[in-house]
Amino acid sequence: MSKNIPDKVSNRLTLYHSILAEYIEKGHEYISSPQIAQRLSIDDSQVRKDFKLLNNAGKCRVGYIVKELKDSIEKTLGFAKAKDAFIVGAGHLGLALAKYDNFNSYGLNILALFDNDPHKIDIQVNNKQIFHISKLPNLAQRLNVDIAILTVPRQYAQEVADYLIDSNIKYIWNFTPAVLDVPPHIKVWNENLIASFLQFACKEIA
Amino acid sequence: MSKNIPDKVSNRLTLYHSILAEYIEKGHEYISSPQIAQRLSIDDSQVRKDFKLLNNAGKCRVGYIVKELKDSIEKTLGFAKAKDAFIVGAGHLGLALAKYDNFNSYGLNILALFDNDPHKIDIQVNNKQIFHISKLPNLAQRLNVDIAILTVPRQYAQEVADYLIDSNIKYIWNFTPAVLDVPPHIKVWNENLIASFLQFACKEIA
Repeated sequence: MSKNIPDKVSNRLTLYHSILAEYIEKGHEYISSPQIAQRLSIDDSQVRKDFKLLNNAGKCRVGYIVKELKDSIEKTLGFAKAKDAFIVGAGHLGLALAKYDNFNSYGLNILALFDNDPHKIDIQVNNKQIFHISKLPNLAQRLNVDIAILTVPRQYAQEVADYLIDSNIKYIWNFTPAVLDVPPHIKVWNENLIASFLQFACKEIA
Repeated sequence: MSKNIPDKVSNRLTLYHSILAEYIEKGHEYISSPQIAQRLSIDDSQVRKDFKLLNNAGKCRVGYIVKELKDSIEKTLGFAKAKDAFIVGAGHLGLALAKYDNFNSYGLNILALFDNDPHKIDIQVNNKQIFHISKLPNLAQRLNVDIAILTVPRQYAQEVADYLIDSNIKYIWNFTPAVLDVPPHIKVWNENLIASFLQFACKEIA
């Protein structure tokens, strides 16, 4: 993914991509910018402007060629490079993410889940096994995984993050509301649902 | 919430807010911008710049007064106005969100969950009841709820969204990967986990 694509544009590109995937499923060959714009309640000049950032957006006289446009978005956003990750915390959120099949098509492979609850160990979720957390250091090393998706309860977040870091995890996608304290070489990406809701509330809710 | 605060700033303000809540829990009275910056791996000039957007950030000689800074963020982000919402889809994701206590302190009150699975009906989750989806139109009207958090499987997303709109829901926080087709007066906020992951991958993952 090109580093100079702003977050809002890459956000829209993934939404366009979902619409294109739907069009392909339905057997449509062409799509126009107003058709896309209408689905997202945005202006079609915005859509056209975003497509100018793509190499070879597949524009022709009758609109965009769905397949070419989709490929171009994938190339631009860098879906091709697959990345392996573990989910740490097999509660409702961890299980929901394990079942979220869409990740796979965007290059995120969830290999396994981890929890400390003996009742959950060895259960299969969407073809991924839940292991005891004590198996994580060894599996991370053997499978060469350095990305963890953290979905434990807030009060355990820091303790588990410390354990992950000791296990050579370098990237933490943090779904807990906790603000993690980590050394400078560890990268944390906070999935801030509160901020997202506040943006929704402020921009859209009367 | 003031409309002219950029998304990235409001995002950081909620993270600062979490750190401040933690400081209050621990009994600390003051906090410095470098202390906050270090926790988020950002520059402390960024933190100070963000605080300049707040009215009365509570700055004094020894740092910021934790309580005043926290209140000021709350006022700026508009936590005060509470909003009621329903969760539609009591699968793992719906249950995870129902248990996410943090929403409450940021003004989002989840009143109930809805599903069509008879095995889930009448179960209580975090003091919220799961009702059959057929009860939604009536409850939405009686409780004056016009916000729905959509957590059904992707393939039912559009059909359920149509049903919600017929039930006078006006705001849909869409956690499904489906791009919803809605009339212009309905506001949809897409929680785009794929876009979030791609931003993480592109900015931070080597």
